[in-house]
Amino acid sequence: MINRYVIIVAGGSGSRMGVNTPKQFLPIGGLPILMHTVRRFRSYSSDLQILVVLPSEQISVWEALCRQYQFDEPVLVIPGGKTRFQSVRNGLESIRATDGLVAVHDGVRPFVTAELIRSGFETAEQTGSAVACVPLKDSVRLVQPDGRSQAVDRASYRLIQTPQTFQLALFRDAFRTSEQPFFTDCASVVEYAGHPITLIDGSYDNIKITTPEDLEISELKIRLIE
Amino acid sequence: MINRYVIIVAGGSGSRMGVNTPKQFLPIGGLPILMHTVRRFRSYSSDLQILVVLPSEQISVWEALCRQYQFDEPVLVIPGGKTRFQSVRNGLESIRATDGLVAVHDGVRPFVTAELIRSGFETAEQTGSAVACVPLKDSVRLVQPDGRSQAVDRASYRLIQTPQTFQLALFRDAFRTSEQPFFTDCASVVEYAGHPITLIDGSYDNIKITTPEDLEISELKIRLIE
Repeated sequence: MINRYVIIVAGGSGSRMGVNTPKQFLPIGGLPILMHTVRRFRSYSSDLQILVVLPSEQISVWEALCRQYQFDEPVLVIPGGKTRFQSVRNGLESIRATDGLVAVHDGVRPFVTAELIRSGFETAEQTGSAVACVPLKDSVRLVQPDGRSQAVDRASYRLIQTPQTFQLALFRDAFRTSEQPFFTDCASVVEYAGHPITLIDGSYDNIKITTPEDLEISELKIRLIE
Repeated sequence: MINRYVIIVAGGSGSRMGVNTPKQFLPIGGLPILMHTVRRFRSYSSDLQILVVLPSEQISVWEALCRQYQFDEPVLVIPGGKTRFQSVRNGLESIRATDGLVAVHDGVRPFVTAELIRSGFETAEQTGSAVACVPLKDSVRLVQPDGRSQAVDRASYRLIQTPQTFQLALFRDAFRTSEQPFFTDCASVVEYAGHPITLIDGSYDNIKITTPEDLEISELKIRLIE
């Protein structure tokens, strides 16, 4: 059996939510978002090794929440860095295995399905990488620095989600680089190292909870599911 | 008082919804989506002239729905064309005034606010055009015909919504052209005629209902609002 890992990155503050609680700790359906996300990965496989990367100052809060909610999923908690790149690298450095597969996932995407997680691991095993994405529903325009804009062909673009899954050796190699300002996700890091990216079909349901509207919709979605 | 019009385009079938009812007629919160959309524009202004463009074969269905729901908002119903371009042009040709402002809006965007409608008319009055858009929340990749993809800077892109509002004379001039395959919205038609496009801030709440998931979320949003 090939080693499988997921690094769940939960680095957010509550600033865009207008609250002090980090958004990954806000409850939906009576349970913190991050616990929903962990559960989704656990339901994919009991053998999956789950790493949760949190800002150092939030680790004791997470531990208190785990006691409060009697949340006893075995996860390895890793202190994050100043940026997402550094947080993923911290997670990666705590993995001892030399080969296997590693998925990276946003802590605040709690609607990921076992099917999408499986698709990521299977594709990455074959091609090296598997990055979830969806087509754009709306027209899209490219904006110039002077504010002028022009229509571009939306069929040529994909919105990128997580999970983003990679072969471990390839992923380690990519993260040996120094951080670049255009690293917005793991795919951009792996691409910068010269590896091609395989896109897989994500889902419009797999939303990233970043605004109060997202939280409201997520609360309703959870109620529909449960 | 300057003449103000809105052309509400409702050309959809139910195909992507997996139902036979055209999606603009599906109920949310107990009322067909298109009626919510009409009401949003009416609540912006009682002087606004509202044109609803519908496929010819759906006009009698709409009239029956209006009787059923006792929906008596004064709107002018116009038969649509084979494409969105033709439908908008049909709406435009039924406007007699030579000057004024015209907004075009998707029938299945029922969460548009009076504030966004007002912002569109005010900006278009000053600059000629006002096209609602939102920044991308996710990373974005450009996909080549061979399937390879590359990261692009998401900060340079905007997702385009409606309302798209224009000065009437300029809009008429733009629609004198023959239809092009890259016309995905009114902004692309106006741009093709050589007029610059002004972008205004839309809203993530202003969703276009196109999938069963969108319908489900919309039902929940309506319950929150009402």
